[in-house]
Amino acid sequence: MATTPGTHLSDLEIAARTVLKPIAEIAASAGIPEDALEPYGRYKAKVDPALLSAKNTKRGRVVLVSGMSPTPAGEGKTTMVVGLADALAASGTKTMIALREPSVGPSFGMKGGATGGGQSQVLPMDDINLHFTGDFHAITSANNLLMAMVDNHLHHGNKLGIDPRRITFKRVMDMNDRSLRTVVIGLGGPTDGVPRETGFEITAASEVMAVFCLATDLADLRKRLGKMTIGYSYTKEPVTVDDLGAAGALTLLLKGAIKPNLVQSIAGTPAFIHGGPFANIAHGCNSAIATNTARSLADVVVTEAGFGADLGAEKFMDIKARFADCAPNAVVITTTIRALKMHGGVSLEDLGEENLEAVRVGLPNLARHVEIIKKFGIPPVIGINQFTLDTANELKIVTDWAAENGIECATADVWGQGGAGAGELATAVLRALDSPTNFTHLYDLEQSIEEKLLSLVRDVYGGEGVDYSPKALRMLEQIHSNGWDHLPVCVAKTQYSFSDDPQSLGAPTGFRLQIRELIPKTGAGFIVAITGVLTTMPGLPQVPAALRMDVDQAGKAVGLS
Amino acid sequence: MATTPGTHLSDLEIAARTVLKPIAEIAASAGIPEDALEPYGRYKAKVDPALLSAKNTKRGRVVLVSGMSPTPAGEGKTTMVVGLADALAASGTKTMIALREPSVGPSFGMKGGATGGGQSQVLPMDDINLHFTGDFHAITSANNLLMAMVDNHLHHGNKLGIDPRRITFKRVMDMNDRSLRTVVIGLGGPTDGVPRETGFEITAASEVMAVFCLATDLADLRKRLGKMTIGYSYTKEPVTVDDLGAAGALTLLLKGAIKPNLVQSIAGTPAFIHGGPFANIAHGCNSAIATNTARSLADVVVTEAGFGADLGAEKFMDIKARFADCAPNAVVITTTIRALKMHGGVSLEDLGEENLEAVRVGLPNLARHVEIIKKFGIPPVIGINQFTLDTANELKIVTDWAAENGIECATADVWGQGGAGAGELATAVLRALDSPTNFTHLYDLEQSIEEKLLSLVRDVYGGEGVDYSPKALRMLEQIHSNGWDHLPVCVAKTQYSFSDDPQSLGAPTGFRLQIRELIPKTGAGFIVAITGVLTTMPGLPQVPAALRMDVDQAGKAVGLS
Repeated sequence: MATTPGTHLSDLEIAARTVLKPIAEIAASAGIPEDALEPYGRYKAKVDPALLSAKNTKRGRVVLVSGMSPTPAGEGKTTMVVGLADALAASGTKTMIALREPSVGPSFGMKGGATGGGQSQVLPMDDINLHFTGDFHAITSANNLLMAMVDNHLHHGNKLGIDPRRITFKRVMDMNDRSLRTVVIGLGGPTDGVPRETGFEITAASEVMAVFCLATDLADLRKRLGKMTIGYSYTKEPVTVDDLGAAGALTLLLKGAIKPNLVQSIAGTPAFIHGGPFANIAHGCNSAIATNTARSLADVVVTEAGFGADLGAEKFMDIKARFADCAPNAVVITTTIRALKMHGGVSLEDLGEENLEAVRVGLPNLARHVEIIKKFGIPPVIGINQFTLDTANELKIVTDWAAENGIECATADVWGQGGAGAGELATAVLRALDSPTNFTHLYDLEQSIEEKLLSLVRDVYGGEGVDYSPKALRMLEQIHSNGWDHLPVCVAKTQYSFSDDPQSLGAPTGFRLQIRELIPKTGAGFIVAITGVLTTMPGLPQVPAALRMDVDQAGKAVGLS
Repeated sequence: MATTPGTHLSDLEIAARTVLKPIAEIAASAGIPEDALEPYGRYKAKVDPALLSAKNTKRGRVVLVSGMSPTPAGEGKTTMVVGLADALAASGTKTMIALREPSVGPSFGMKGGATGGGQSQVLPMDDINLHFTGDFHAITSANNLLMAMVDNHLHHGNKLGIDPRRITFKRVMDMNDRSLRTVVIGLGGPTDGVPRETGFEITAASEVMAVFCLATDLADLRKRLGKMTIGYSYTKEPVTVDDLGAAGALTLLLKGAIKPNLVQSIAGTPAFIHGGPFANIAHGCNSAIATNTARSLADVVVTEAGFGADLGAEKFMDIKARFADCAPNAVVITTTIRALKMHGGVSLEDLGEENLEAVRVGLPNLARHVEIIKKFGIPPVIGINQFTLDTANELKIVTDWAAENGIECATADVWGQGGAGAGELATAVLRALDSPTNFTHLYDLEQSIEEKLLSLVRDVYGGEGVDYSPKALRMLEQIHSNGWDHLPVCVAKTQYSFSDDPQSLGAPTGFRLQIRELIPKTGAGFIVAITGVLTTMPGLPQVPAALRMDVDQAGKAVGLS
């Protein structure tokens, strides 16, 4: 059971004590032929999907792990993915994991990576959390080559007539660096470029990352890169990467990175860890290529979408599954007693005490996430991620409620026991996979952006309507006139609430969503709708985690969590 | 023989037609045990020196390939390294190559990589020229984490009292991006950092790169990183990375990268390609760890230093060899008839015509490079890199002159024939290696910075004296007061002339070196003396090479040269 850090081995210590299998062995167990495998060190490899597809027409079923609205208590969704997959594999189901890659930058800020925890981790944890196979760096390079070419174009006479004040694309860095949020570049005189105000985003927030994760193959990647809008001309026409002639070079920089990365869980379940877009400004799940490559190898693929069902899962259905034909066959909604209590009004400090009433008051949040999944025609499974201090009475409230409502539900101790703690959950998931699905998107692409947003607010978030800022209204007009209405919508809102108010926990109703801005991502193929303030470049805290990090005398990582 | 591009197969085409051996086979031929090998794909691997050293006390001899003062005609030093090494290997000498890694960024600007050419290339050329094993990205990350921590320190109260106007360290990017030369960061209000003017350098120009290439092991790397000066406090005291507590995290980011990368030449000679610092603001050769690891495996290691003997070779002797105990046993001075003619006053357009007089007039440039090498007590070998249009009479002028002066000299057709074209040169090099050496540094560390610079100008460049700008004089005082006089000097001057005037070809005398600035690099362990204008961030040309780059339908690189 997940417990207080400090009293047990740390994730890094557990990881360090695990004897990993050579990656070729993991690949063989997954049915990956040797000629499709490119090892990166002993325990990581890239897999070339082009060398698999000819040999394989399998299309494994997809289990999407989502969650209720996250709380500061931490729900452990990635840990659930790994534990559940290990349990499915142990039950004799040919299973693969597909997860996002963690950013390097943020791990030097607040906390470590996104490789699960306890006995449910993907390994090698320190490699995955540091540079891994360099995919984020390749994406950073591609993005920044594009921007160097844009500013070079301005410098050499600006033949395309790009308006320097209307360049919307930014440079990126895989780093928490608030000082780069707003910068003026091109200073220093006529030989040093054209001065203009711009900024840096973290790599995970970039459109190149979103494109990388939605592309279905190298040709689709190149096409999407070419369609990215970098800004507007003086006549307010969109300027694309293809207008600049840069799509080929960007694709060249990404041709290695686009191959999924194979690693293993502590239990030896094969896992693709590939791509890592944010779940607010982007769609928040691993690459389509990784998901579909895993499906060509395994009978069941366990994957994750960022934040709750209102954000990550919805985007999985309406964006990723639409482009990459990978609709889930079952969705696990990760929940914890702690999170239910927080949605029931308990503060982080008081979570240690049993509070049956708070669990009951928090249930409507979970219930709405369940309803969202049902709306897409997919069977939901509630997975309770058990923590040490959860009481039997608290757990019973959830399991009873699920039973009364006919929803599959199981408790799992994935942190403490790995797959062995998720046997019941695996059984519930297998039952759900055998039940009929009737997958449907929430909206049709032909609907207008306003109709799509209204449908999201009413049918998913549980609100009443949508309000647009004057800026958003101007952008709506621009979207119409550029013919971008047919794109799906990607809402960037707080993950803590169904509404756009992070303080509004539980299952609020009657609210209206305030749209401040609409940003077309014409390469990724969606319109980002921004509510509230969105930071695409995090900062470091007063005492960054980097201060505790080091390398010991044996060359091993110290201080990664 | 090297010839006009376009009439023959391109380097990329030759590379693509080569059947590479699996990297494990190359490693085995080099005597690298399997447990020290970390494959990166099929044809690249990192080698862990810690797993070699215990088993090996060999210290192979070092052949340094230098050159005359470069010209726009291109002298092909890297091609000479590869061809010579292939010839030595073919002669039965256990040989390894040690070269710099190319930057990704510049390859999208003017020209392709630094992997040799024709039949004398290290492969896989496209991988090496793109992200390779991610070392440059790791260095970029480490550098930029440091800067994020510096600006975060300012943001959170600036306990160390760092003067934001006196932060000398910059962020880096492995990109040609002139618009980042001078930037203002930290704009946007109180939550977005402290505004200040700064800039970006290309990764190859960073002190982290220099440190990476001079460190002798992981512990030395950490120590040097900690000693880097990031700027000065309001009381004008130097502020170091150790003051910020960041050395551990930076080392963690570099712990994988610091292992040398193993690849192969077309002929299958094992090659370490590792680290790539500039040869002006830094010392311009591959990592000390790569050179010394190669020496622990091979009898002869062929390596390269940037630019001519006045810059790269001098720095190899006075900086790298001093820190890493790897003095060369012979130095090849690469020369071409074309370069001699340019130093003899011929323009690039007229190089196709025989011009005996111009060759004669250009010889003093070569002669001075020969003298420089002799001054260090190392036997020089002139290697003429033969081009198609060179005439027998032109070549004879050089070989006769060398014979008259008792200098080893051989002509080599490494571009056209690979090692088979460098047999004579290999024999000359082996003779030189058997002749006695009497290695001596040009100056003692105890001498003052002024004395060191005077010695460089008089004994190496052939000038008269040194002039200091008022700014340089102030910096000299600061260097004295901070106790940095004992560091070696790294001169950043034009590579085209012995003087600081790039137009002054041949072998100028009587000039004085104008020192504009002195920049302490306390982690790398040298003082950079800047003459003239030094750009540490290149720009893209009007028509960047990126516009021609792409990926074909088979996923192969197009347009890399």
